[in-house]
Amino acid sequence: MNLREYSLEDKEKLIWQKINTKTKPLGSLGKLESLAAQVCKVQNTLTPQITNPQMLVFAGDHGLAQEGVSAYPQEVTWQMVLNFLNGGAAINVFSQQENLELQVVDAGVNFNFDSIDTSISTGKLINQKIGYGTRNSLEDSAMDTNQVKEAIERGRRLIKELVKTRSTNCLGFGEMGIGNTSSASLIFSAISGKPIETLVGSGTGVFDAALDHKIEVLQKVSNRHDLPRLFTQKSTFSALDWVEEVLSKVGGFEIAMILGAILQAKEDSLLILIDGFIVGAVVLLAHHLDSSVLENCIFAHVGNEKAHRSMLEFLKADPLLDLGLRLGEGSGAALAFPLIQAAVNFMNNMASFESAEVSEASKP
Amino acid sequence: MNLREYSLEDKEKLIWQKINTKTKPLGSLGKLESLAAQVCKVQNTLTPQITNPQMLVFAGDHGLAQEGVSAYPQEVTWQMVLNFLNGGAAINVFSQQENLELQVVDAGVNFNFDSIDTSISTGKLINQKIGYGTRNSLEDSAMDTNQVKEAIERGRRLIKELVKTRSTNCLGFGEMGIGNTSSASLIFSAISGKPIETLVGSGTGVFDAALDHKIEVLQKVSNRHDLPRLFTQKSTFSALDWVEEVLSKVGGFEIAMILGAILQAKEDSLLILIDGFIVGAVVLLAHHLDSSVLENCIFAHVGNEKAHRSMLEFLKADPLLDLGLRLGEGSGAALAFPLIQAAVNFMNNMASFESAEVSEASKP
Repeated sequence: MNLREYSLEDKEKLIWQKINTKTKPLGSLGKLESLAAQVCKVQNTLTPQITNPQMLVFAGDHGLAQEGVSAYPQEVTWQMVLNFLNGGAAINVFSQQENLELQVVDAGVNFNFDSIDTSISTGKLINQKIGYGTRNSLEDSAMDTNQVKEAIERGRRLIKELVKTRSTNCLGFGEMGIGNTSSASLIFSAISGKPIETLVGSGTGVFDAALDHKIEVLQKVSNRHDLPRLFTQKSTFSALDWVEEVLSKVGGFEIAMILGAILQAKEDSLLILIDGFIVGAVVLLAHHLDSSVLENCIFAHVGNEKAHRSMLEFLKADPLLDLGLRLGEGSGAALAFPLIQAAVNFMNNMASFESAEVSEASKP
Repeated sequence: MNLREYSLEDKEKLIWQKINTKTKPLGSLGKLESLAAQVCKVQNTLTPQITNPQMLVFAGDHGLAQEGVSAYPQEVTWQMVLNFLNGGAAINVFSQQENLELQVVDAGVNFNFDSIDTSISTGKLINQKIGYGTRNSLEDSAMDTNQVKEAIERGRRLIKELVKTRSTNCLGFGEMGIGNTSSASLIFSAISGKPIETLVGSGTGVFDAALDHKIEVLQKVSNRHDLPRLFTQKSTFSALDWVEEVLSKVGGFEIAMILGAILQAKEDSLLILIDGFIVGAVVLLAHHLDSSVLENCIFAHVGNEKAHRSMLEFLKADPLLDLGLRLGEGSGAALAFPLIQAAVNFMNNMASFESAEVSEASKP
């Protein structure tokens, strides 16, 4: 049954009619029910399917990393990319478990992957390098506007290509980039008007004095680029100009590329599985450009990064998991995937009260 | 590496050493890390494995159902058992998705399954019927003490048999029985001393006036069997006598049988995956008999039944999922299973900082 011709109201009615006649008490599958309804609406069907689900991990470096905003040195970005290619990271383990194809995109890592003599297949890495890391946003804008445009465009092209070649209809988004929780906090501040110091968390693990230092650095970055003023100008700029302005100031390459990818995924009616705080910050930007993008977004989890919960509340998003994760890479997205599969499966495979000849509840 | 010979302290040290050298920020896999550590301790190894995981759904009827404590008539118990055997229920769909073997046990359903002329394989049903439903606990004790003993013993035997024949090391527990949230609330009241009226929830879906009625009925049951006095006697009786006393008063057959099964599963060092409010009530009893049972219990989820969260707090249990489920059948346990698999897989398959040549975090 193709629901495309129906009004949104009629779609909802048909979908919930199907959910509510399954052999279970009304509402008893909780969030899985609203998830099933969302998938049906995105796919315009009462018999949804997940085909060739895939994880995409975008990696990029951040000039701001040199200010000591992360517990790890910048080189960890490329080292972890190699770890992804070697199959040794959490996202590899979880993707493999859930039969999710995993691809890693070099959006702008500060490393020449062609240079290494290695037995691993660097050919698995999708080279979309915009540059060798962004500039330090404490001293300069992180990117030129044309780099931002190029990153968004390449993100879009990647998804077009994927849809064409693999007929995937469900994409999970993850990232790797030492310093990128800083970009995410700055983006959240610019878009929400919340003071930057309330949005800074431990990232990969900065605590106490190191966290105070991170907060101080991000306050300086915010002042340098006058993010509070940018916030007040949100409705005077064109949405795209405004988003490009924010991205050029605070980065990063992988964030801009994910933005393009998510916008294209929405246009192609894919399910968009959102991982943690950084990919969430991309959704903030995507939502500013096109609020309907949320129709396709499934928020995998709320993590332990300080402002993640308030970011999800800002988006009125209801995450599936709450496991205290703060790893990134798309790990939360991969872990939430079986819940999406379960929502689809109960919709297709559970009996109805009628078909199973089970008595219904007495009407109150 | 067999950890059996090590002290608990040394075990913990070795396990966390392995977790903390994986290529991820310290603690960044949140609850999956403590879950991995638990599985390692239960299995006494640094390389845990899940073998032949299985769901067991125990079904039984409750005489109290005739007092209108459920939204559904009693016949739904046997109808849902047939639905399980036909593969049409939520637990079928989720078990199949996760490759969990599913077995249904008739602990005391008010129906003669041999009587039906059907194309379905009732042979898949494990017949351990203690009786055709318990007595109405508003009028009498729900079970005789020898029925309680028999149910516990049969639960134990079932697990011994399963371990012998299928080498399973991970069991998920679920239940089906119209009226059994009432038993669970009464058990929780007896063991915690909390007033019964604070522990009564909507079960499969009683709201407003119907919920008031359920509360009133359970207050009468509590008064009839003087559960508040039973609570004060908890430490004067032998633990087993006390548990048998509670079970004989408020039932039910499936609850007593699950108790035996969980006790045996603990003795056989299995992982014990706990579903919702009713199986949780069994854990309250098991814990009173042997507090070490919690070492093996993994709490799948906190559901929407009113007192489920306070029950988990009473057990100091940290559930994996919070999806607003209130279905039972083991559905939450099956949905949580991939997280256990993920904990085991990251422990075995993620690279360490050393093996992947990734730089470690700077020491704070």
